[in-house]
Amino acid sequence: MNRLNIGLIGSGFMGRSHALAWRASGSTSPLDVTPHLELLADVDAATAGKAAAGFGFARSTGDWEALVADPAVDLVDVTTPNILHAPMCRAVIAAGKPLYCEKPLAPDARTAFALAREAEAAGVPTFVGFNYLRNPLTELAREIVQSGEIGEVWNFRGIHAEDYMTDPKSLWTWRLDPKGGAGAVADLGSHIISLARYVVGPIERLCADVDTVVAERPTREGGRRPVEVDDQARALVRFANGAKGTIEASWVATGRKMYLAFELVGSKGSICLNMERMNELKLYVTGRSPVTDGWIEIPSTPAHKDYAGFIPAPGHQLGFNDIKTIEVAEIVRTLTGAAGQRVPDFREAAEIQATVDAILLSAKSGGWVSVDGVAKDAGR
Amino acid sequence: MNRLNIGLIGSGFMGRSHALAWRASGSTSPLDVTPHLELLADVDAATAGKAAAGFGFARSTGDWEALVADPAVDLVDVTTPNILHAPMCRAVIAAGKPLYCEKPLAPDARTAFALAREAEAAGVPTFVGFNYLRNPLTELAREIVQSGEIGEVWNFRGIHAEDYMTDPKSLWTWRLDPKGGAGAVADLGSHIISLARYVVGPIERLCADVDTVVAERPTREGGRRPVEVDDQARALVRFANGAKGTIEASWVATGRKMYLAFELVGSKGSICLNMERMNELKLYVTGRSPVTDGWIEIPSTPAHKDYAGFIPAPGHQLGFNDIKTIEVAEIVRTLTGAAGQRVPDFREAAEIQATVDAILLSAKSGGWVSVDGVAKDAGR
Amino acid sequence: MNRLNIGLIGSGFMGRSHALAWRASGSTSPLDVTPHLELLADVDAATAGKAAAGFGFARSTGDWEALVADPAVDLVDVTTPNILHAPMCRAVIAAGKPLYCEKPLAPDARTAFALAREAEAAGVPTFVGFNYLRNPLTELAREIVQSGEIGEVWNFRGIHAEDYMTDPKSLWTWRLDPKGGAGAVADLGSHIISLARYVVGPIERLCADVDTVVAERPTREGGRRPVEVDDQARALVRFANGAKGTIEASWVATGRKMYLAFELVGSKGSICLNMERMNELKLYVTGRSPVTDGWIEIPSTPAHKDYAGFIPAPGHQLGFNDIKTIEVAEIVRTLTGAAGQRVPDFREAAEIQATVDAILLSAKSGGWVSVDGVAKDAGR
Amino acid sequence: MNRLNIGLIGSGFMGRSHALAWRASGSTSPLDVTPHLELLADVDAATAGKAAAGFGFARSTGDWEALVADPAVDLVDVTTPNILHAPMCRAVIAAGKPLYCEKPLAPDARTAFALAREAEAAGVPTFVGFNYLRNPLTELAREIVQSGEIGEVWNFRGIHAEDYMTDPKSLWTWRLDPKGGAGAVADLGSHIISLARYVVGPIERLCADVDTVVAERPTREGGRRPVEVDDQARALVRFANGAKGTIEASWVATGRKMYLAFELVGSKGSICLNMERMNELKLYVTGRSPVTDGWIEIPSTPAHKDYAGFIPAPGHQLGFNDIKTIEVAEIVRTLTGAAGQRVPDFREAAEIQATVDAILLSAKSGGWVSVDGVAKDAGR
Repeated sequence: MNRLNIGLIGSGFMGRSHALAWRASGSTSPLDVTPHLELLADVDAATAGKAAAGFGFARSTGDWEALVADPAVDLVDVTTPNILHAPMCRAVIAAGKPLYCEKPLAPDARTAFALAREAEAAGVPTFVGFNYLRNPLTELAREIVQSGEIGEVWNFRGIHAEDYMTDPKSLWTWRLDPKGGAGAVADLGSHIISLARYVVGPIERLCADVDTVVAERPTREGGRRPVEVDDQARALVRFANGAKGTIEASWVATGRKMYLAFELVGSKGSICLNMERMNELKLYVTGRSPVTDGWIEIPSTPAHKDYAGFIPAPGHQLGFNDIKTIEVAEIVRTLTGAAGQRVPDFREAAEIQATVDAILLSAKSGGWVSVDGVAKDAGR
Repeated sequence: MNRLNIGLIGSGFMGRSHALAWRASGSTSPLDVTPHLELLADVDAATAGKAAAGFGFARSTGDWEALVADPAVDLVDVTTPNILHAPMCRAVIAAGKPLYCEKPLAPDARTAFALAREAEAAGVPTFVGFNYLRNPLTELAREIVQSGEIGEVWNFRGIHAEDYMTDPKSLWTWRLDPKGGAGAVADLGSHIISLARYVVGPIERLCADVDTVVAERPTREGGRRPVEVDDQARALVRFANGAKGTIEASWVATGRKMYLAFELVGSKGSICLNMERMNELKLYVTGRSPVTDGWIEIPSTPAHKDYAGFIPAPGHQLGFNDIKTIEVAEIVRTLTGAAGQRVPDFREAAEIQATVDAILLSAKSGGWVSVDGVAKDAGR
Repeated sequence: MNRLNIGLIGSGFMGRSHALAWRASGSTSPLDVTPHLELLADVDAATAGKAAAGFGFARSTGDWEALVADPAVDLVDVTTPNILHAPMCRAVIAAGKPLYCEKPLAPDARTAFALAREAEAAGVPTFVGFNYLRNPLTELAREIVQSGEIGEVWNFRGIHAEDYMTDPKSLWTWRLDPKGGAGAVADLGSHIISLARYVVGPIERLCADVDTVVAERPTREGGRRPVEVDDQARALVRFANGAKGTIEASWVATGRKMYLAFELVGSKGSICLNMERMNELKLYVTGRSPVTDGWIEIPSTPAHKDYAGFIPAPGHQLGFNDIKTIEVAEIVRTLTGAAGQRVPDFREAAEIQATVDAILLSAKSGGWVSVDGVAKDAGR
Repeated sequence: MNRLNIGLIGSGFMGRSHALAWRASGSTSPLDVTPHLELLADVDAATAGKAAAGFGFARSTGDWEALVADPAVDLVDVTTPNILHAPMCRAVIAAGKPLYCEKPLAPDARTAFALAREAEAAGVPTFVGFNYLRNPLTELAREIVQSGEIGEVWNFRGIHAEDYMTDPKSLWTWRLDPKGGAGAVADLGSHIISLARYVVGPIERLCADVDTVVAERPTREGGRRPVEVDDQARALVRFANGAKGTIEASWVATGRKMYLAFELVGSKGSICLNMERMNELKLYVTGRSPVTDGWIEIPSTPAHKDYAGFIPAPGHQLGFNDIKTIEVAEIVRTLTGAAGQRVPDFREAAEIQATVDAILLSAKSGGWVSVDGVAKDAGR
């Protein structure tokens, strides 16, 4: 069997998760090529070397450009801070290699669409890590909606809220750098937007309210720096298919650790999915006897897409990293032609980014904004 | 001990609940006067007579004006369809009697403020039935916020969603009559607005999106009639104290039976309250050891306001009608001077109605609306 | 319409609950006679008078025997400490009046069976307050089991655990008096036994382990007194119909306030009911598609027995006192012949008590015990 | 860095899970040696070859004895059907290699103790896969109990119930072979016994009731075969430290997929842990203000043992296979001397098996049984 040699740039939160995922992918899915941890790059050789040993990479380097150019690297996987995505992606596209980048792809839709166009022109397959789409229960939600079983979608309330920035003493980091794009709405909002698009469809218009509640943060160097990006955001949204709803994002949602959730109301049923309990989906379908009418609590089981590759027994639970493993297995299947592409490509990531940009624009302008308009202005 | 003779108009859902509440109130709270079910009025003598017997009223009548004029009636309690509230309230005010009216008080803020002014001019005590404010755990939420324990309020996500109008075959009723005011946003939205105001404070500005998903309904007479009021609504809201958030209302939220809920995010803690499990409040407070950090699930107990009058044991649970009983006991305490007024008066109800009107106006105008402006235009 | 004049003895936790229930019953059920709060007795005239005023009784007395003898009293309702049940019941039976007594009926099965025989001989209708049987969802559980929908019952795990005696500083009370019978197994265990019998059927044999974890308690008088009754108990049980399972009772279950719950496993489905969330029943039925297989969360609605008399809307929730109201309405319906008897009579209470006694006997003897044998020995 | 070459026997449910775990262990924990998937054995070369490719093993074989003898294999990992554990373990012990075997170790305590003695005599390190002990929240429960924070343990209610044998049409498999040992009580009961021992301590005496509800099953060959092992079991248990409680096991618990759970009641607090939601622990501690008294819902976070190696963010959730990964990392740490042994060795597994045997003996004899006695009779 052939190998797919992975070149990973970055060894932080996402770097570790990607490394674990690439290693596990071959054991949980029948793949036509085996992902191999070939080369890891990080800011310097020492950091890279240490991480490579831990993650099981064959080689390491302190020079990411060398990684991109390395003839033994078949696919480049970018997990660096957001601000570095664009230059790195451009180098990979120039090298003509398949490219997998963590979300958010770029600081704004203009850059994201440009990257998408460049990749398309170069014929480079692209993938962006909106991993929650790969939860088997997300796939189930999508299938139920598309089957028509719960009728027309009337409302979608989506949210991604965590609290890692609640503490005003938490440090100013690269996530707060406005050059890297928006704040919570980019970091977390992009996840719930990706889910909304995947399950319901494109958002056409929106009206948002965005604010920053912690005005400045201490810096690692000892001073203080003003926060220029958003801490929390909410938007009224209208989908192209007529559904309406709301989208919310916050990284100051005190007490919430992984509240990525939606409730989708249809004319004949409803779905609740909450990644705080990512192995459970709640489904309501009209037409049951009133005596035993109620929501069905569906646990994740081998009957759901991709679960069986991990565990043959129902209800035994997948974890966060397993979802990432499913994502990379999908990438492999796409590359080998074993399946159509499910993981968002750069164009889809740019559409998500245009929705993020529209939220910021609406918040600034104080009114409804056309997401299509924003996307077109950004060079879609 | 003196009696407080109750005159009740209406014997439907709310009429029954009020009757039960008045009867139980004396046994669950030490009151200085005892509510007595004196006289019940309904559309005709037969309906009224039957209901009076069932509810335990001493007398009944088919003539509500006679009830208002009856010298033995000390307080008039209005539980008729919304559209009748204003004329009945006016008659009671004219009669100078304490007045308790179900929500929503009036079809619009103009009428509500007019009623408030008239009652104030006449010196008539007024009360409006926003019963969920009386859940002991609502009071607890308010106390926690006001104590400063969870810091500054950053976000409030409030919703009242039920599904009693999901079925397109459900009949056109008086709730759909535009003369009676708005749809879901008046019937259910007013509840969550009242909670938002009670726990956080007044809403200053908002931007809303409102729609009707079932375009027409069958009528009792056999034809079909277009639906002119809203089925679902969502609004971005900004509170006077700087908090932001969202308000949502729907009577087509398929699967939901009593989803009146909010999550309030503060800088030092958060609160979740959901009337689907009305005997539980979730509280998060920062500063715990990371090892045992988490949300506290607080069950309703005798340590919470009003619970002990019903049950001396913790966690044994109050029901929907018990909350109504607490409401009428509060009314009695206000009338006897035993306590300050907690139940919203007509002025507070008019402010709530102005928020409802602002939602409709914003949805029509497509932009942000000042609730103050709406209230002033309505003759606040 | 005729009145049913109630004579209530006792005005504590249960006295209050009964008073509320009698008052509300006429408004929540169509009854052929109206319960009337005629006479309240307590330990002295002052206590009785104060409670009577609060609860709305027409008259009061410090002499319970006078109440029993009072010609205006149609039914006597006994809510005094357990140890007083037997002498009071005997007096009521002698007076030939319908008799409603709180559980547990007697300190042991011998006394309970004797009371049952005496009442039967006198032709006196009897009722014992196992109120949780009246939760509409208990009735639903029973109906589902009896319908055969979930097949043969294989296992029943039942528990009633609270923590009101966890604190070793909580006072020695009449509940701890061995003359009044057992401890937690009588006070709480009798509830779960009554549920087990109602939903599954009689328990034939059992083997138990019982212990006392707080060896002595402070007394009101300032000293300390050893605890001679059980704090917690568990039993293996075998039902007459072949089902097996466990029964558990504890009043030292730290953290639990109202954990009366069971999980019933059948060959074709299962049921979970937990009075901590008394308005929810979980039902699992085999045969669903594996893709949407799961437990159904059924909220209490008007489709369930007795709910509609309280609230016409689904999911709005009944409370603890509402269940008591259903119980007294059932008693009225039985007395007027409007319905067959559902509330346990003294004979059923004696059978429950025999099961309690069997638990104690087994714990003492250290082996399996026949409940039938215990009942026969007790003069069944 | 040195490698630890793994030889795995068996590629079913557990084989897959172990392979994933060995691969991931190096990336989630800093280990002094790196586990390497050296050799996989299964019933024949073809099966082994296919699995080896999927799991990423370097080599494969159809001859498990060759695997044991292979000089390149440093540790042998046995995941075959139970009945094969003993002969395979004996061969590994004879080869003097570290040995990791899935639970249950043996069909009875006699065999298990013999294996333990043989391994000890040979100086072979042994490990048995009671993986749920490695859930970071199990470790937290143990720490809380051992810290004394919740006082003396008064009661432990433990259960492991699933429903994979509920369907009477499900096939007769090796799990039902009485030569392999008991049924549900061995397969699932051993898990909850291991948890009980880990968190509370040894069980001293017990009294059990065990039954088989599906009397015969279809065989793969087309006939039917009687079921001779238990489907469900419950036991009263007494711990050596004075705590009491119950243990339950069932593989016919209709509707349950992974109900491995316990509630531990202490004199100053309580703990609930349920592997259906394996990332959540509920903790109650006495002494809070009655106003905000309640259970704390603790999500799994980096503050808990081993979680941080997988995910730096709290509440993002571990899955079933992650717990196995923690188990194998513990084995590596024990072998390198980096940490003391936490994973049960053969002696601990034999003690667990003695408890299983005691349940069966008690069920047969119909009375209380000394677990110590059973262990001694089995040659402890």
